[in-house]
Amino acid sequence: MQIAFVIYDRFTALDAVGPYEILSRVPDTECVFVSEHPGPVRTDTGVVAITADRALTDVPRPDVVVVAGGPGQSALMEHEPLLEWLRAADTTSTWTTSVCTGSLLLAAAGLLRGRRAASHWLALDELRRHGAEPTGERVVFDGKYVTAAGVSSGIDMALTLVGRIAGDDVARAVQLGTEYDPQPPYDAGSPAKAPAGIVELVRGMSRFILT
Amino acid sequence: MQIAFVIYDRFTALDAVGPYEILSRVPDTECVFVSEHPGPVRTDTGVVAITADRALTDVPRPDVVVVAGGPGQSALMEHEPLLEWLRAADTTSTWTTSVCTGSLLLAAAGLLRGRRAASHWLALDELRRHGAEPTGERVVFDGKYVTAAGVSSGIDMALTLVGRIAGDDVARAVQLGTEYDPQPPYDAGSPAKAPAGIVELVRGMSRFILT
Repeated sequence: MQIAFVIYDRFTALDAVGPYEILSRVPDTECVFVSEHPGPVRTDTGVVAITADRALTDVPRPDVVVVAGGPGQSALMEHEPLLEWLRAADTTSTWTTSVCTGSLLLAAAGLLRGRRAASHWLALDELRRHGAEPTGERVVFDGKYVTAAGVSSGIDMALTLVGRIAGDDVARAVQLGTEYDPQPPYDAGSPAKAPAGIVELVRGMSRFILT
Repeated sequence: MQIAFVIYDRFTALDAVGPYEILSRVPDTECVFVSEHPGPVRTDTGVVAITADRALTDVPRPDVVVVAGGPGQSALMEHEPLLEWLRAADTTSTWTTSVCTGSLLLAAAGLLRGRRAASHWLALDELRRHGAEPTGERVVFDGKYVTAAGVSSGIDMALTLVGRIAGDDVARAVQLGTEYDPQPPYDAGSPAKAPAGIVELVRGMSRFILT
């Protein structure tokens, strides 16, 4: 089973690396990072680059597509080389998935029309404008389309997907191997849980976070 | 505040990227990925490379040191260029930290002698052999030494550290920005919680996971 992680200039590192760390541990999978042009791809902070070993065109028929989100997404919403690849890969994929604002790219490619979907909580309105039905859920399955909420949610999405692909016990083994027993020191990880002042602070920075 | 993420051949990607994604969002921080030799550094799976922009010697006095774990750690337990750098950087650091088997490298450098520390649950015995006092906790503070358990625990470690560095509200804003509201679909993330059969399965694969 080939799993393609789609990255691009100014993607968010954890959006891709979270699901990769989970999915790469499933037996009999081949993971590959892909980008329009292969080579090191800078993340949104500029601090670090992650190498895409293959060009999109080198990987035309992955079984699973995982599209990362990140500020760089906004420049690609009409970028046909990516959108055409997403549409073509989707015709043969078993699962078409995204993390964070990666779902906006799936929506821009026309793949989420009328479908329930997740995205970063600050991007849910834009997801609706592109024809999807946003939910406040962390991981949303709608047929073969699996979308996750912001950044860190890709870990939960991937672990859920491992259960579907390889069974519950493999998923549990992966969870134990990565010691994924989260114990956040705060309980502010969603707009419903965070103090109102923090929500407004982050909302005020949304242009920085999402564009 | 300069934060150095130490990576090396066959490190585990999420060990570094989890804390990076959290710490890079703190105002007035400069994050830098460092390795003995700068350039792309392959992770444990071989699937992907992450670029270290700077050599260890280029970053002699970071305020925060974050040492990733991964199977490549075992080849470095007597590798003086790294251990000497860790000892030297530690003389001026504000926080010296690790994720997963990164704590074994801190211990090999002599920095955890007699200190309470965390590591991947499969590596706790080895941590003790190197003079530390392993705990089963997910994030352990002992003075300025902060060690985390396996792989995904670096996210919790980093968020806790953000609270210490920049205050609770900044940490909450980072948690909300990364939508870190974990909802694992299984409850098997520690040996105490996973079914016994799964624990034995993963223990049997430990040579693959840790070396």
